[in-house]
Amino acid sequence: AVEAQTDSAPYTNAQRETADRLIDRALEDDTAWDILESLTTEVGPRLAGSEAEARARDWAARKMKALDFKNVRIETFELPYWSRTRESAEIVAPFAQPLAVAALGGSVATPEGGVEGEIARFETLQDLIDAPMEGLEGKIVFVDEIMTRTQDGSGYGAAVAKRSGAAREAGRRGAAAALIRSVGTDSHRLPHTGMMRYAEGMTPVPAAALSNPDADQLARALRLADGPVRVRLDIGVETRERAISGNVIGEIPGRTDEIIVIGGHLDSWDLGTGAVDDGAGVAVTMAAAKLIDDLTGKPKRTIRVVLWGAEEVGLVGARAYAEAHESELDRHVLASESDFGAGRVWRFQSRFGEAALPKAAAIARVLRRLGVGPGDNNAFGGPDVGPLRAAGVPVFTLAQDGWDYFDLHHTADDTLDKVEPEALKQNVAAWAATVYLASEMEGGFRDHATEGSAAGASR
Amino acid sequence: AVEAQTDSAPYTNAQRETADRLIDRALEDDTAWDILESLTTEVGPRLAGSEAEARARDWAARKMKALDFKNVRIETFELPYWSRTRESAEIVAPFAQPLAVAALGGSVATPEGGVEGEIARFETLQDLIDAPMEGLEGKIVFVDEIMTRTQDGSGYGAAVAKRSGAAREAGRRGAAAALIRSVGTDSHRLPHTGMMRYAEGMTPVPAAALSNPDADQLARALRLADGPVRVRLDIGVETRERAISGNVIGEIPGRTDEIIVIGGHLDSWDLGTGAVDDGAGVAVTMAAAKLIDDLTGKPKRTIRVVLWGAEEVGLVGARAYAEAHESELDRHVLASESDFGAGRVWRFQSRFGEAALPKAAAIARVLRRLGVGPGDNNAFGGPDVGPLRAAGVPVFTLAQDGWDYFDLHHTADDTLDKVEPEALKQNVAAWAATVYLASEMEGGFRDHATEGSAAGASR
Ligand SMILES: [Zn+2]
Ligand SMILES: [Zn+2]
Ligand SMILES: [Zn+2]
Ligand SMILES: [Zn+2]
Repeated sequence: AVEAQTDSAPYTNAQRETADRLIDRALEDDTAWDILESLTTEVGPRLAGSEAEARARDWAARKMKALDFKNVRIETFELPYWSRTRESAEIVAPFAQPLAVAALGGSVATPEGGVEGEIARFETLQDLIDAPMEGLEGKIVFVDEIMTRTQDGSGYGAAVAKRSGAAREAGRRGAAAALIRSVGTDSHRLPHTGMMRYAEGMTPVPAAALSNPDADQLARALRLADGPVRVRLDIGVETRERAISGNVIGEIPGRTDEIIVIGGHLDSWDLGTGAVDDGAGVAVTMAAAKLIDDLTGKPKRTIRVVLWGAEEVGLVGARAYAEAHESELDRHVLASESDFGAGRVWRFQSRFGEAALPKAAAIARVLRRLGVGPGDNNAFGGPDVGPLRAAGVPVFTLAQDGWDYFDLHHTADDTLDKVEPEALKQNVAAWAATVYLASEMEGGFRDHATEGSAAGASR
Repeated sequence: AVEAQTDSAPYTNAQRETADRLIDRALEDDTAWDILESLTTEVGPRLAGSEAEARARDWAARKMKALDFKNVRIETFELPYWSRTRESAEIVAPFAQPLAVAALGGSVATPEGGVEGEIARFETLQDLIDAPMEGLEGKIVFVDEIMTRTQDGSGYGAAVAKRSGAAREAGRRGAAAALIRSVGTDSHRLPHTGMMRYAEGMTPVPAAALSNPDADQLARALRLADGPVRVRLDIGVETRERAISGNVIGEIPGRTDEIIVIGGHLDSWDLGTGAVDDGAGVAVTMAAAKLIDDLTGKPKRTIRVVLWGAEEVGLVGARAYAEAHESELDRHVLASESDFGAGRVWRFQSRFGEAALPKAAAIARVLRRLGVGPGDNNAFGGPDVGPLRAAGVPVFTLAQDGWDYFDLHHTADDTLDKVEPEALKQNVAAWAATVYLASEMEGGFRDHATEGSAAGASR
């Protein structure tokens, strides 16, 4: 599988051969699966700030040491804590029946016994935003907006706006509560949770997501009923002003002081075991780094695996890392997080300086045999590398097929059985080859103007 | 679509044309969908003996009258009542996490706060049956047997044995509780409930089903743990010795006193809205009878639609009907229940007397254009016509494609969105043509020896 090298290739023949050997090995390597199985089984759900997330950090540090990572450490930080204690909903009249519902992260509780109100349905969030300020007092607002299924996850941005928006607009209008159709593409009675935030200074109203079949059912009930449809929503929450989370860090030390950051986030929503969000990212990046460590000599750049804490509740670990490591950000030559499930990688995207684009093309070339196509230079890089990206650190994305991702995302169904072992191996292969080549390539990935400094800032 | 008639065809050219017109009309008719939408939305879940099942009976009688059925009546009967009031399970040690679980119908409650015990896993029910009588005291037995996915539902018979068998064998051995892997073929965290029964004279132990992903998880935990895995199971139930259920009956009266019984069961498990089990059967058979009423003259035989009550908890309505109608069973010339979901009909099976087999072949011929193939003469006929079949009434089965049926069966996911409208129409077409032809054909479907009497009994 070794092609003839052109003069312009930013790697040597030997490096290309090593990348190919990494791919060969990754496709036969069970390490990622073993890591993922261990995390999702031995820890299970790991809500940010919870005792379970603390167990996940201990698990991660142990696992990193067992895999011979160096400089293994836990960097803790504080955050507010939220968890659900109860949640239920039912149509009270005219067609009494239960509805499957999940509180949204950050929601306030209802009074014990719930709130009951007439349903006011809006087909889209925009319809609610456009609604008059009067007429919703005491009602339960229901934003029924449907998410679009896409390969690249582009449906999410539009769909997720209602997660905070519904409660904000409901609160502004004196409504009793906000219900949304789940931000998800499946048809199972497993609602999708996720973080929401209230607007400053407004009365917070309880907010919850109906599963898609339950949103269908509520919409049908509204259509078939002669009069108003009344729903009761009961939510209990536990909150603490301060809890502990942390990032777990381990390294394959390099020959220089330059750093490549890769990883996934360690926390998960409480409903599932966080296999695709984001156990897979944890497993793939750990396994890729381990494979490089096993197969190549000491890399030129340090490969730093960061398992981010408290991603789900607002990228708390990402900000804590950027703060704690501010002084060495200019030595961060590249960063990426795997956080889009366990589907096969289908394209390589960069966010490099102009001068480094041949390096992106060269990496993409090596990945072709994995079915990975070339992408643009607008890589997102992953949520937890946002502060690094904002500080000018180049990023890449090994874009995964996300067709099914939002069937599972933030539901009880996010479990190990949903992961295809062969797809996981393909991910490890792509990550190992990419990170290895990026580690060895001459020169960095920034614009020349900003090379070696963080002054480039948020592109 | 009218073929040349052969001399041997047991229908006239005009009847064949009418059957074809019924099929044409059924494929454009929304009646079944409207019925199913109304039942699953306006009534929703309808547990046997519950107030919701009573609402379903009122709904059915109203709907039958609106569709111009004659002799509409509710025939009530008594039954013991069981419902769940709470259910939860968790791995306590070593990997603390919740498990998705549903109490099995008829299970006793645990003490408040649950029972906790070490898991003893058995790969199959037979392994548990073969286990020694000692060694399981105080443990929680886990029967992890996997169900086979099949088109014709033949995997169910083997898989369902554990639903009663696990608790029986656990109870005999002094175990604290019984857990089973759901009798189902999906990979969602929605456990499958269903009825179980204790053996006479034995200590009843609480019994519940884990969803398939949770059974996977528990099996993995057992494999990855160094020592025992402990689980807590908490089940609450409400029982009453006597509750009311009933069959709802409506007719398209015929020109003779002979009767063809068709229908579906009105009750459903509580977790879903009973769209595929068995709202579809209710809707298809009502819509087929209505179409015959609208399109043909008065049929020779009365088409009696029976919407059975309390099927799920032990065919209580079936037995009540056979008792109440004992004196007219010899005038029941044919019976069938649609109770295998909403998938397309793929074959026609009869259980006719030898002399009537040309009639089966003739009906099958008419159904060919619907993609329905010929079947054998061993039709089951449906659960609620069991007592009729046992009394010698010939039955038929319009066998539905059940490939996905046990993904949904007895779960919260049994909802309207799982039904394909076009498949529902194809069902109505097959039922309308079959029932119309059977109603008009000369002579009956029994053996000549038993023709006109119930003496043939259980073939
Ligand atoms: Zn994530
Ligand atoms: Zn997430
Ligand atoms: Zn059924
Ligand atoms: Zn059933």
